[in-house]
Amino acid sequence: MISSTPPPPYTAVIFTSVRTDGDAEQAAAYAATSARMVDLAEQQPGYLGMESAHERIGITVSYWQDAESARRWKAVAEHLLAQRLGRRVWYSGYRVRVAVVEREYGPQG
Amino acid sequence: MISSTPPPPYTAVIFTSVRTDGDAEQAAAYAATSARMVDLAEQQPGYLGMESAHERIGITVSYWQDAESARRWKAVAEHLLAQRLGRRVWYSGYRVRVAVVEREYGPQG
Repeated sequence: MISSTPPPPYTAVIFTSVRTDGDAEQAAAYAATSARMVDLAEQQPGYLGMESAHERIGITVSYWQDAESARRWKAVAEHLLAQRLGRRVWYSGYRVRVAVVEREYGPQG
Repeated sequence: MISSTPPPPYTAVIFTSVRTDGDAEQAAAYAATSARMVDLAEQQPGYLGMESAHERIGITVSYWQDAESARRWKAVAEHLLAQRLGRRVWYSGYRVRVAVVEREYGPQG
């Protein structure tokens, strides 16, 4: 649920998105691709964790050892295909913010 | 929905939380306090935007001109009270990550 990340600094990629009003087939493909991308991200070098919630907007924050491992994940072939489908079919808008986490606190529960 | 933020760098505060199984009264107080905190945050100097989604976990990302304006918001009296209620009543776990956004891209829709 809440990622256990190492002591900062590390990289956070904040992905905020708004979905299109797709049909059931598009929604199923989106759900399957999302699940696959989570599995695939977990296998990448430098992956530290991922947190995700969807309501009126979707927010996914993925955590990476450094900017380079985040950049490599962006360039993974199957992920590039998912990004293209996202832009063309699933998202009416999105924003990606690449940030360096400098400090963190709080009980993780 | 998706915040319109200025060119980086600026500060992002990533707040990830898991709610307790509260009763209806607690849920109502939480909803009212959350809405009030959004209003109050928007009035603070250096506030740039806020994005929020709740599912199994809640994710709220607030954007600030710099680390100092984020720190001042953390210290606002009414916000301190809300944070205390959060720790005691509403959240079984949470994590706060303070990060510097270095680049961003994507159509906002």
